[in-house]
Amino acid sequence: MLGKIALEEAFALPRFAERTRWWAGMFAVNPDKHAAEINDITEQRIKYMDEYGVGFTLLSYTAPGIQDMWDSKEAHALAVEVNDYIAEAIKPHPTRLGALATLSMHDPKQAAEELRRCVTQLGFKGALVNDTQRAGADGDDMVFYDGPEWDVFWSTVTELDVPFYLHPRNPTGTIHEKLWAKRSWLIGPPLSFAQGVSLHILGMVTNGVFDRHPKLQIIIGHLGEHIPFDMWRINHWFEDVKKPLGLSKTCKKTIREYFAQNIWITTSGHFSTPTLDLCLTEVGADRILFSIDYPFENFHDACTWFDATELNDTDKKKIGKNNAANLFKLGDFKDRDA
Amino acid sequence: MLGKIALEEAFALPRFAERTRWWAGMFAVNPDKHAAEINDITEQRIKYMDEYGVGFTLLSYTAPGIQDMWDSKEAHALAVEVNDYIAEAIKPHPTRLGALATLSMHDPKQAAEELRRCVTQLGFKGALVNDTQRAGADGDDMVFYDGPEWDVFWSTVTELDVPFYLHPRNPTGTIHEKLWAKRSWLIGPPLSFAQGVSLHILGMVTNGVFDRHPKLQIIIGHLGEHIPFDMWRINHWFEDVKKPLGLSKTCKKTIREYFAQNIWITTSGHFSTPTLDLCLTEVGADRILFSIDYPFENFHDACTWFDATELNDTDKKKIGKNNAANLFKLGDFKDRDA
Amino acid sequence: MLGKIALEEAFALPRFAERTRWWAGMFAVNPDKHAAEINDITEQRIKYMDEYGVGFTLLSYTAPGIQDMWDSKEAHALAVEVNDYIAEAIKPHPTRLGALATLSMHDPKQAAEELRRCVTQLGFKGALVNDTQRAGADGDDMVFYDGPEWDVFWSTVTELDVPFYLHPRNPTGTIHEKLWAKRSWLIGPPLSFAQGVSLHILGMVTNGVFDRHPKLQIIIGHLGEHIPFDMWRINHWFEDVKKPLGLSKTCKKTIREYFAQNIWITTSGHFSTPTLDLCLTEVGADRILFSIDYPFENFHDACTWFDATELNDTDKKKIGKNNAANLFKLGDFKDRDA
Amino acid sequence: MLGKIALEEAFALPRFAERTRWWAGMFAVNPDKHAAEINDITEQRIKYMDEYGVGFTLLSYTAPGIQDMWDSKEAHALAVEVNDYIAEAIKPHPTRLGALATLSMHDPKQAAEELRRCVTQLGFKGALVNDTQRAGADGDDMVFYDGPEWDVFWSTVTELDVPFYLHPRNPTGTIHEKLWAKRSWLIGPPLSFAQGVSLHILGMVTNGVFDRHPKLQIIIGHLGEHIPFDMWRINHWFEDVKKPLGLSKTCKKTIREYFAQNIWITTSGHFSTPTLDLCLTEVGADRILFSIDYPFENFHDACTWFDATELNDTDKKKIGKNNAANLFKLGDFKDRDA
Repeated sequence: MLGKIALEEAFALPRFAERTRWWAGMFAVNPDKHAAEINDITEQRIKYMDEYGVGFTLLSYTAPGIQDMWDSKEAHALAVEVNDYIAEAIKPHPTRLGALATLSMHDPKQAAEELRRCVTQLGFKGALVNDTQRAGADGDDMVFYDGPEWDVFWSTVTELDVPFYLHPRNPTGTIHEKLWAKRSWLIGPPLSFAQGVSLHILGMVTNGVFDRHPKLQIIIGHLGEHIPFDMWRINHWFEDVKKPLGLSKTCKKTIREYFAQNIWITTSGHFSTPTLDLCLTEVGADRILFSIDYPFENFHDACTWFDATELNDTDKKKIGKNNAANLFKLGDFKDRDA
Repeated sequence: MLGKIALEEAFALPRFAERTRWWAGMFAVNPDKHAAEINDITEQRIKYMDEYGVGFTLLSYTAPGIQDMWDSKEAHALAVEVNDYIAEAIKPHPTRLGALATLSMHDPKQAAEELRRCVTQLGFKGALVNDTQRAGADGDDMVFYDGPEWDVFWSTVTELDVPFYLHPRNPTGTIHEKLWAKRSWLIGPPLSFAQGVSLHILGMVTNGVFDRHPKLQIIIGHLGEHIPFDMWRINHWFEDVKKPLGLSKTCKKTIREYFAQNIWITTSGHFSTPTLDLCLTEVGADRILFSIDYPFENFHDACTWFDATELNDTDKKKIGKNNAANLFKLGDFKDRDA
Repeated sequence: MLGKIALEEAFALPRFAERTRWWAGMFAVNPDKHAAEINDITEQRIKYMDEYGVGFTLLSYTAPGIQDMWDSKEAHALAVEVNDYIAEAIKPHPTRLGALATLSMHDPKQAAEELRRCVTQLGFKGALVNDTQRAGADGDDMVFYDGPEWDVFWSTVTELDVPFYLHPRNPTGTIHEKLWAKRSWLIGPPLSFAQGVSLHILGMVTNGVFDRHPKLQIIIGHLGEHIPFDMWRINHWFEDVKKPLGLSKTCKKTIREYFAQNIWITTSGHFSTPTLDLCLTEVGADRILFSIDYPFENFHDACTWFDATELNDTDKKKIGKNNAANLFKLGDFKDRDA
Repeated sequence: MLGKIALEEAFALPRFAERTRWWAGMFAVNPDKHAAEINDITEQRIKYMDEYGVGFTLLSYTAPGIQDMWDSKEAHALAVEVNDYIAEAIKPHPTRLGALATLSMHDPKQAAEELRRCVTQLGFKGALVNDTQRAGADGDDMVFYDGPEWDVFWSTVTELDVPFYLHPRNPTGTIHEKLWAKRSWLIGPPLSFAQGVSLHILGMVTNGVFDRHPKLQIIIGHLGEHIPFDMWRINHWFEDVKKPLGLSKTCKKTIREYFAQNIWITTSGHFSTPTLDLCLTEVGADRILFSIDYPFENFHDACTWFDATELNDTDKKKIGKNNAANLFKLGDFKDRDA
């Protein structure tokens, strides 16, 4: 399919090249290739886009990024730098590249103001944040965005009418030692990523974020971070047990309604036909968005899989491009075949 | 379907009646009913079995049970008491009721010996353990069974040729405070149960337990605790990234092979047709077992769902009874319609 | 779900009561009940609608109806009588009942004019025709509507901007003797119905009806009369073999495109979750419409199945009511819960 | 997957080379290539097998073959010639090639005897017949094998304990004129093949062939010739309507039971993941067999699709080779990876 739109696509800051290369050595089979790809914005990336029929890419700063910085000031300063950098870098390619804001999530007001700046002044299409914000003296605390203190932030997100992508990051601190240190092969895509994000987004559901911000649009990757698998089970326990016991105070709608009204999922890093099939049933084609997760995944795997997937024309176009064109107000890209 | 076999079915000790009633108040909409049902072994339970076409039930001590006890001596003593109690209680109904051993998991050798006693002397059909064993001075530690110190235990399990059910328990200690305290509606079936067990079983996979014990048979509930949803993604990262980086040292086979040779999933508490459908594809009907999770779930929901599920006759019989009859060597129950 | 819309729902003419009763004896287990239900328009029917959450029913004259009449004059006269009868009968219930025109299909112009009368003067929402029109001196011929002589009719259908339901009828004449007489248990829903309609609609596709009338909207029942099952196989042979050999002369688009742009399927008489699941993939929720096929099927089977089907909220509403509200321009009924 | 077994694989008689080439011109995009491939037994065919991981091929004479011959004597003579020819041709490759008997179906006893000769003297593994036998003075009649006069034949098939493949052939005679002549693009794989075979096999079901021959094993291709799509609908009408009206006289079991005990389906010519998925649910992996339909389809399409299909290891091996190894008693080929 030509004209696909991809939206979980990472870049790094060139001035961190050395650190990026070192980091790549921890998870990439070919760390040099990975480092080159993540530092590039407009050369190799656009070549791949042309080769594999991706019309438009929304770029975001790579994980764990700002969410790994427990010094609030440093975190904000770097977020601003990243946003200014990518705004400049994509300027020559407005028909091919867009950006999602990078945010320090230490202070809800500050995060809201930086998002406003990015959207209104830099033309960004939304934000992408890597799960909880590391905080505390030793970076051992985790800031979740599901409490009432974050209402000021979510109000700004809905006022600006842009989506917010909740991306994973690795476990740190005590949690890491207790659960992950002796089974470190499970850190990242095989398990910890989905465990972190699913807790966070379901925390937002049960703590009433979507009830207080009914227009809020949150995107999660990897076909929904396990949640569609348990849609029945979550719904059953929420409606039949937890709500009678008090959950109904914060959470008025069903989990299915939040997924129909507030939550989107992408195909990033999960090129599985049976799992997509389950998501078509439990989430629906109107709420699924194509994505790659480049350069952690490659264009070839993502695009040849998606293009070959046997699916009716209408839903395939929705997932490949039209849903994203509507959600991010990229009107020109709807049904576009280039 | 008549003659179904169910195997994640809980009982409590009558002498803890007061505590059981208090505990029920924390999660049951009708705590009195729950307490009555979990304390009963042969009256209401067999009535339900007759009403809903369950031929045989394998009983196990309710969660968190022994795994919540961080004093090693107390834990073992209670396990022995529980095993003796249930052995006696089911004796009059050998054609309807069987049992899975309750084990203290502080000491691998001790656990192995108690399992041996239960299987060889009491006629139990396997064991059921509630995720990690609480340990340490304050009960803040968690014992996983995926390290080499547990080989002596797994050797006994395979020597006895019985399956081991890895059941969930609630998060405790630091983990609880960091992740769950402010989003407590997610504790239990909606999220924490699957997060705990999936980490544990995948820890067993990546730490090489199944490579060292290729005949070991582990059962997990709730249609696989999220894992079938990510079968492609786990396989992709293990085979394409983690193994080249070193995972291949402990873990020689693919995740799909461990699921084909060592792991079983049950329908306990997850009466979802789309999710079962995914599991038929990713796990296969030869490795799926009917179960209820009574009295946390009820016979009506489980059995009317399963009986009405549209599925070919062969696989429906496998899941409903024949797989369990083979796995637990209940030859008389195979294809039995009563 | 409340407010469902149903559209393959049959009635008979009261003056044929005797014949209707005799006919019912050939296929109904309880012919008296069937005869009573099919002759009723506003009593039992609306009671069932209330009981099972059906907000609106589109009525059509029962099969084989006019298509079984090989005398052209008689056929047209009866069609007019039927249309006048049902227009009158539903008048007191404009918020609950609508109608699809009954047509004699001997003469394309005459059929077009009667449809125009029904839509513009009687307020009908479209037409329903029972497969081929019996014709010839002995009723042994079959008129298909896939040749160029029917362009005048299809032009009127698209000009009026109403859908056309292609409903099955039983095999007759030589075909009956050759194929069906000795295996008569297969006549009707088990096999012959789908074989007839699938040939007819695919004849329309390959003979270019949709290329000449790109706005034409055809509805077929029973989840698509087998075709979604072979979507890949048909597409493969059309695109890879038949088009290179000449099919491309009449048929420019792919079978998937005709299903995305011109064809709708209903759930009438096929309350199967696995088959619906395949149709969600191969046809898509935007083109599936709830229906019952009352009184050949009953409200209970259709509605309890559909209401219990595990499906995301968005697609369930589309199938249950919103697609039909859009297609038949029943704006008031969209998202209506009554 | 290495070691796959394929069983709907055609050959022609070299002495008909001219006719084969002419026939190929009617449906093949490259008739010369097709003619070369279908006339070859051991050269190109084994090269493809090696290239695409097919360990064993069961050959059968191409359709419509003997079933197109309405002269009984000529038909039988050619069948014998074909059987002798292929027995000789495959002799040098007993580990790679096997054969299914070609039969004239004019006379049940004669067909039975020729099958016996093929199985006991030539080592054939079963039979493949192309739907109804053309008969009558003008070839306008069709012999079905679902009447009691065929019991002598089916008794021999079960006595020999070999499977019978019911393959399609094109419509002929009156049927052709009435239904297919003006929509000839639908003849063959897009529609007529499945319509013919599904009528025939369901005729066998309803006329009691499987009740009289409960061990009979029939194979149908193309993922079941539409029938799995309507499994619910057929079962509903048989059990709820047709049996109360009399079908129960000849047909004691449910359609699902016949599919579990007597019928197999192959993937020949239908390389569709969503359709295979439905068949896994409605038929089950224990009754699905890999096949290609070479040279009407090619090895590349069939094998790259099957090898890439995301499916649990156990069921994938069953479908790819182990079911066929069991059914055709090819013990050496079970789990074989070459």
